[in-house]
Amino acid sequence: MMAKAPRVAIIGGGVIGGGWAARFLLNGSDVAVFDPDPEAKRKINEVIANARRALPAIYDKPLPAEGKLTFCDSLEEAVSDADYVQESVPERLDLKHKIHAAISEAAPAEAVIGSSTSGFKPSELNEKGARALVAHPFNPVYLLPLVELVGDADACAKAADLLRAVGMYPLTVKKEIDAHIADRLLEAIWRESLWLVKDGVASTEDIDEAIRMGFGLRFAQMGLFETYRIAGGEAGMKHFMAQFGPALSWPWTKLMDVPEFNDELVDLIAGQSDDQSGAHSIRELERMRDDNLVGILRALKVSDSGAGRVVANHEAGLAVSGEKEGLPVTLDRQVPPSWTDYNGHMNETFYLEAGSKATDGFMELIGADSAYIAGGLSYFTVESHVCYLDEVHEGDRLSATSQLLSGKGKKMHLFHRLYRGDGTLAATVETLLLHMDLKARRSCPPEGEVARKLADFEAAHAGHPADGAGRFVGERPGDR
Amino acid sequence: MMAKAPRVAIIGGGVIGGGWAARFLLNGSDVAVFDPDPEAKRKINEVIANARRALPAIYDKPLPAEGKLTFCDSLEEAVSDADYVQESVPERLDLKHKIHAAISEAAPAEAVIGSSTSGFKPSELNEKGARALVAHPFNPVYLLPLVELVGDADACAKAADLLRAVGMYPLTVKKEIDAHIADRLLEAIWRESLWLVKDGVASTEDIDEAIRMGFGLRFAQMGLFETYRIAGGEAGMKHFMAQFGPALSWPWTKLMDVPEFNDELVDLIAGQSDDQSGAHSIRELERMRDDNLVGILRALKVSDSGAGRVVANHEAGLAVSGEKEGLPVTLDRQVPPSWTDYNGHMNETFYLEAGSKATDGFMELIGADSAYIAGGLSYFTVESHVCYLDEVHEGDRLSATSQLLSGKGKKMHLFHRLYRGDGTLAATVETLLLHMDLKARRSCPPEGEVARKLADFEAAHAGHPADGAGRFVGERPGDR
Repeated sequence: MMAKAPRVAIIGGGVIGGGWAARFLLNGSDVAVFDPDPEAKRKINEVIANARRALPAIYDKPLPAEGKLTFCDSLEEAVSDADYVQESVPERLDLKHKIHAAISEAAPAEAVIGSSTSGFKPSELNEKGARALVAHPFNPVYLLPLVELVGDADACAKAADLLRAVGMYPLTVKKEIDAHIADRLLEAIWRESLWLVKDGVASTEDIDEAIRMGFGLRFAQMGLFETYRIAGGEAGMKHFMAQFGPALSWPWTKLMDVPEFNDELVDLIAGQSDDQSGAHSIRELERMRDDNLVGILRALKVSDSGAGRVVANHEAGLAVSGEKEGLPVTLDRQVPPSWTDYNGHMNETFYLEAGSKATDGFMELIGADSAYIAGGLSYFTVESHVCYLDEVHEGDRLSATSQLLSGKGKKMHLFHRLYRGDGTLAATVETLLLHMDLKARRSCPPEGEVARKLADFEAAHAGHPADGAGRFVGERPGDR
Repeated sequence: MMAKAPRVAIIGGGVIGGGWAARFLLNGSDVAVFDPDPEAKRKINEVIANARRALPAIYDKPLPAEGKLTFCDSLEEAVSDADYVQESVPERLDLKHKIHAAISEAAPAEAVIGSSTSGFKPSELNEKGARALVAHPFNPVYLLPLVELVGDADACAKAADLLRAVGMYPLTVKKEIDAHIADRLLEAIWRESLWLVKDGVASTEDIDEAIRMGFGLRFAQMGLFETYRIAGGEAGMKHFMAQFGPALSWPWTKLMDVPEFNDELVDLIAGQSDDQSGAHSIRELERMRDDNLVGILRALKVSDSGAGRVVANHEAGLAVSGEKEGLPVTLDRQVPPSWTDYNGHMNETFYLEAGSKATDGFMELIGADSAYIAGGLSYFTVESHVCYLDEVHEGDRLSATSQLLSGKGKKMHLFHRLYRGDGTLAATVETLLLHMDLKARRSCPPEGEVARKLADFEAAHAGHPADGAGRFVGERPGDR
């Protein structure tokens, strides 16, 4: 899928357009941008810089080589050979009409045209004859998978395939409606929150804490209905609804009314927001947010749930490949922020994690892959020896080669070399594994095909030096 | 704080009462439960079983020894010597009045009395003369930190101290209001979601995905206002409000009206929920949810943000201590679900993580603690050798002792032994570190106090055997 990344045109930069540009670029697409704002180039490059820190950090495999970013002088130039066009201009219907008329005329007939609009329906966007669909993303676009698709069914299906290929989660809305789905829910919370602040019940910070210390943690992994289903217990969803249904008629929200939007309300909210978050610049807040999101997405990937499953599915399509100095590359990835410790560098643990993933990569090469493991056979590690040769930092590219020192009988004796992106040898990981029957929890010789491939690798790697293997901790020349 | 855990009475079991019982028990409190339901004991023990899997897994240190759980035959017996009473009976005001009258009479005068009510205000609870405050938690109570406190200021302050000591985040609501804060926001989303399903715009599953693939990930770590502050960019909160304020007058929500709560709506929602989640039992869903929450909380602990900071603060008050076979215990913890791999046991990486944390524990013992590191001095690992001796599983207690093989000059040569809860030696981790000047990134001898303590440990550990240290990978008797 990655081999033929679509050509993408981004109309309108800013935080959202820049996020789209970053999402596509980092997945290998060439991206052409048009935005008349003289600051657009700087703004988009700032968003892309954030994305380069964060997006590759959610995967344990490398994203494709970055596409090429071009800034165009006209909309027509940007869209002329695009497979996909994404419009993210301000929310004014007259402007959207003008832009979409131009896009629909200048873009190839088979191009898919999406609009980031949070409020307008496709019927509104297209009432002057354009052929756009709503493709509404969520900030930061380069990390959050959700994109709401609304519009022509065939165009939505085409867009969905294309967006899945860049790791997104397209949700096709069944009927067009003002503000689609998620923003209706957010608007409901926003209105109620404005009341609570205006009435002095809670500050902006109180509301943020009420969210992130409680239901926000639930919302990151199950939504509303699955959470309530659990709350209903074995008695189920009907029981839950019977219990909480009556609250619909209680005055539990101020939603029958809307607070007046005046300067007093703006000053109140903005002032409290300054008190709450003013100590950090927006750039700092963005990095804090992104580090949190990377951590959460990686955690959900481990538990194979929600957005983590989207990450896992995307990762499954990414490949580690190549050779270095005659040895197979078995690991290739970016170092996530969470791997850094109090010494300001990658913690010792993650050198072994990298070695462990390199072992997994080598196992795939010999056919001891997930299907083989599901069949009840695997390798267990008996010993590992890590030599730390140089520091590795957050954001570094980290790769590994694997050399088979011995693959006879039940044994697989591997020597991994970990390299930083600049080519420096950062560590060696020597590891001895035994082939196991998973059910009996007992060692046994590997099956035919795996044994054959091991023998091939052993022969191929036999002449290769393995400096640093076979040593004991603290060994110096002449110790033996 | 943990030394004198409060005695707790739980009035009303079920999911919420059981969650409270678990939160206190696992933090060392003796807990007395009263619930006339003959099923209460079974139900509460099921919740506690879930909590034992999950709560200790968010910490890298051990919780205090579990308190004693008692089921009482009367409310009076349960509350008679309680420091803290938590009521979680059904949401009927007449029932709450009856129960709180009895609690206020039978509990010690200085006891703090909380109610889990999601809807009633303290003035309503106490209108017949009781002295309760609202202490409204969120499910699962043993994992989510938020508890909303409403009522008498002194009682709220006392409750806040007590709840912080069990790892919760008390949020004191400035004014009493129906449904407090978080449930007002949830009710707003709930009402809007019911409309979307009723009107055929989205299914229950669509809405759950719209939440967890997008803004749910934001809500787990920043709330509403901080997220929107970022969306406003450098122009700030006023700019954001100017942009989105007008939407308040648009028909973006159905909130001016409430859907009729009838059988048709219940059947529609319950049917869609069955389609969405019916493949899993509630117990399975609970474990999936808890694994996700544990992973998210651990990720946020690493990025020191939101609920993760609450976990970190609580953990800072927990202690690893003791000796085993003449060696200091430097690690003691429960194995979280995320440490398990495709072989159905703790992945090799986490043996080294445990060894790394044991090194941190030993560093604290010699005074090379966080203050020392902040002063610019630390240790970097040069080599580590792990011998895997036995399998470790999710939920196992894992501890380590540390033996100093050599602490001369810049070197610190440690030999950690990892033990499973059943006493089995699960692994050894031999590790060599060098003392470093963090600014110069160069090795240097440690400062006086640290060097002295190292010398003391070296002398004390000199006679201790260290079988398994000094070996090379794959070494067998007679190899040297």
